[in-house]
Amino acid sequence: MTRGADALALLRAELGDRVDTAPESLAAARADKSGHAASGQPIAVVHARSVADVQQTLRIATRTGTPVVTRGAGTGLAGGANAGQGEIALSVRGMDRILEVRPDDLLAVVEPGILNADLNAALEPYGLWWAPDPASRAISTVGGNIATGAGGLLCAKYGVVRDAVLGVDLVLADGRLLQLGHRTVKGVTGLDLTSLVIGSEGTLGVVVGATLKLRRLVPGEVCTIAATFPDVRRAAEASAAVTASGAQPAIMELMDAASLAAVHALLSLDPPTPGAAQLTIQTDGPAAAAEADAIAAVLRIAGGNVALSHDRAEGERLLAIRRSMHPAMESLGTALIEDVSVPRSALPAMFDEIARVEREHGIVIPTVAHAGDGNLHPNFIFAGEPDEFGVIEAPEHVWAAADDLFRAALRLGGTLTGEHGVGVLKRRWLADELGDDQWELQRQIARVFDPLGILNPGKVFAT
Amino acid sequence: MTRGADALALLRAELGDRVDTAPESLAAARADKSGHAASGQPIAVVHARSVADVQQTLRIATRTGTPVVTRGAGTGLAGGANAGQGEIALSVRGMDRILEVRPDDLLAVVEPGILNADLNAALEPYGLWWAPDPASRAISTVGGNIATGAGGLLCAKYGVVRDAVLGVDLVLADGRLLQLGHRTVKGVTGLDLTSLVIGSEGTLGVVVGATLKLRRLVPGEVCTIAATFPDVRRAAEASAAVTASGAQPAIMELMDAASLAAVHALLSLDPPTPGAAQLTIQTDGPAAAAEADAIAAVLRIAGGNVALSHDRAEGERLLAIRRSMHPAMESLGTALIEDVSVPRSALPAMFDEIARVEREHGIVIPTVAHAGDGNLHPNFIFAGEPDEFGVIEAPEHVWAAADDLFRAALRLGGTLTGEHGVGVLKRRWLADELGDDQWELQRQIARVFDPLGILNPGKVFAT
Repeated sequence: MTRGADALALLRAELGDRVDTAPESLAAARADKSGHAASGQPIAVVHARSVADVQQTLRIATRTGTPVVTRGAGTGLAGGANAGQGEIALSVRGMDRILEVRPDDLLAVVEPGILNADLNAALEPYGLWWAPDPASRAISTVGGNIATGAGGLLCAKYGVVRDAVLGVDLVLADGRLLQLGHRTVKGVTGLDLTSLVIGSEGTLGVVVGATLKLRRLVPGEVCTIAATFPDVRRAAEASAAVTASGAQPAIMELMDAASLAAVHALLSLDPPTPGAAQLTIQTDGPAAAAEADAIAAVLRIAGGNVALSHDRAEGERLLAIRRSMHPAMESLGTALIEDVSVPRSALPAMFDEIARVEREHGIVIPTVAHAGDGNLHPNFIFAGEPDEFGVIEAPEHVWAAADDLFRAALRLGGTLTGEHGVGVLKRRWLADELGDDQWELQRQIARVFDPLGILNPGKVFAT
Repeated sequence: MTRGADALALLRAELGDRVDTAPESLAAARADKSGHAASGQPIAVVHARSVADVQQTLRIATRTGTPVVTRGAGTGLAGGANAGQGEIALSVRGMDRILEVRPDDLLAVVEPGILNADLNAALEPYGLWWAPDPASRAISTVGGNIATGAGGLLCAKYGVVRDAVLGVDLVLADGRLLQLGHRTVKGVTGLDLTSLVIGSEGTLGVVVGATLKLRRLVPGEVCTIAATFPDVRRAAEASAAVTASGAQPAIMELMDAASLAAVHALLSLDPPTPGAAQLTIQTDGPAAAAEADAIAAVLRIAGGNVALSHDRAEGERLLAIRRSMHPAMESLGTALIEDVSVPRSALPAMFDEIARVEREHGIVIPTVAHAGDGNLHPNFIFAGEPDEFGVIEAPEHVWAAADDLFRAALRLGGTLTGEHGVGVLKRRWLADELGDDQWELQRQIARVFDPLGILNPGKVFAT
């Protein structure tokens, strides 16, 4: 018997109908939302329903030396959860319970498979919410947010994922269960392994539970501003001016002309002024109205055409334009969605670099940015023939342009990925940012958790 | 030549007058503010003035197999920076420059030896501040805050140290320099080694620089509430009620009767009502007055005798009582200052446990708590004969009581240390909280950074 057949037999014996080898399930486990798919297909998808299922799967994987790729909802954008030839796809999507909500301690304990939006719907009656707010929140899991560090639109005001997780329960490659972190606001007992797991993309263990730090729902009104500018550089300068003014919007999103035009077309809205870029800004909390007025004044001085609404529903309608970016890009072709982040004052310079890359490589790169925190999502659009699983790989000239763009972000003091993770798509640039010494140190740390190298091999750290 | 003499000769050859072997310097390097001192004395204190000095010291340490204990201002409370027989005490206190302040990006780059208070004084003209606010802020260094995770009074509203550091520059045991983290709000490129270093107490490397996440000074008034209660349990219940009400004070400090009496005596104030405990609460920001009124109402319902001030100076006077706790304890004898943290709803139960420990062990344990975040500082007071360096070690019956108290905190879902660190004083309880598997994993991770085990050996991880 091959190693894969051996592992499959053991999985079936121990986990019965949790083990799924239907061709469509195996095919689906090869891909995420990145446009990339793994070579070949996994030997099985294990639909874990409990911590014990995860432990059993990993014990079998260790015994047989079989790689394991953990998956949630498969909405990742870097290929980090794609399972390929000879691998076990371990789905924790079915582990979606809320185990505890402690309003007095502002914490909840959840399983990893719960959807971000479902969690917040369940917390709402308590007057609570969990801040991470990726654009995919309706379809992405909390475990996936933790695995990648996907923070979303609210990070400048309400923090990144690392600020919103107190502890995680982690199953190691050999099946042992560790409880990392604490249930207290403060805790410095030993090394902070919780933070190490956040953003580790399945390379250190399988997150089977998380103790989340909650916030109270923000009282008061929500004000929304939409401001258009003649071009993207002026919009970027305006967003940097808002940050520099000391205002703290909850959301500040920038859409360039190509993005705005694509979304307007998708939603059958009147086409925007050619070349115009837009900022969409929300303020909240007790000083929302005063902050919105101050921000509007900054935007007008910066040359913006400003509309301000105090109506929550109107605000959601304005933000829906931003939230339609992903389907709008899909309407143009296949999109490679990138994720560089720069210091906020460098946003105008980064848009200059994107314009340069567009010129020099002869492509269009529609870009949206979480301008409040400096995280940009440039979209490389391309066409091509789908493979047998419907996946169209990005061609080499797109990667050459992306390479140019990554290096520009690093030169501006930025980072390769603000929230999507490294996965397979950015692993070849990882050492460029970390340096060879840190790259090797990180890899050795991963080996402490996973001595056989069976956890998501080939992801993050290129082999 | 012995290993120590060999190392000393090399240090002198390479670092000249940075190498200090004056008896009083060696004696001072044995101790911190914990009341504990190392056995024997170090071979030298190296006063590093640059990253290159630190690298050179570590290269010599690696070559000669000599342990290195990094020190800042020596204000630690767990013995983590105490240097003993055969060790090099590496002081980074002299590396105290601010290298960059970027108001538009809300970040600063600093050297580790700068005092917390000096940093905030320098940031004030920019309208900025760095949130970590340990009670020792006037005399403790930013590097020490990072090494221990010392957060202080403002953590519930303004976050812990981990939330306030974007990156650190770290010299490894072999002298290599790594730049960890990023300058952006968001960044998930590779494993989060910055967070791993925060609270690692000198066991992973030497922090020689830090990129700090700043906040803007909070506009609006500051309101201060002092509320007295007949006993500490009712004060604790009141603080839990404030948290449960949804109010978010910037500061909420609880002092029990013994603490209050000692501080009043030290400051020559009228003695407080016997048995009375006190909450001191500050609100800030645009809604400070409304929040203070709401909190005052909660406190009155909880049985408090409430005074509310809108005057900043009066507020500082009220808080000065809390900030005098440490000298007040020193006036009573030698104090072992403990640091357990519990979920906020468990504060009343934790005070019950402290009362039980006092009864069963026949001692008094004056206790203050950062009630807003659930972090308690029980003070074990004792007398004894100082050793040759003036240090009085805690006697065994005090450790027995502390052991009882630690286990109570763990039973209530708490943690051994909220902000002081493990050092030498709590290392024997570390595995009780982490479990043996996690303890061993953490130790292996430390070994990846420090294969020879020369960085602060015997600290955190008991050998």
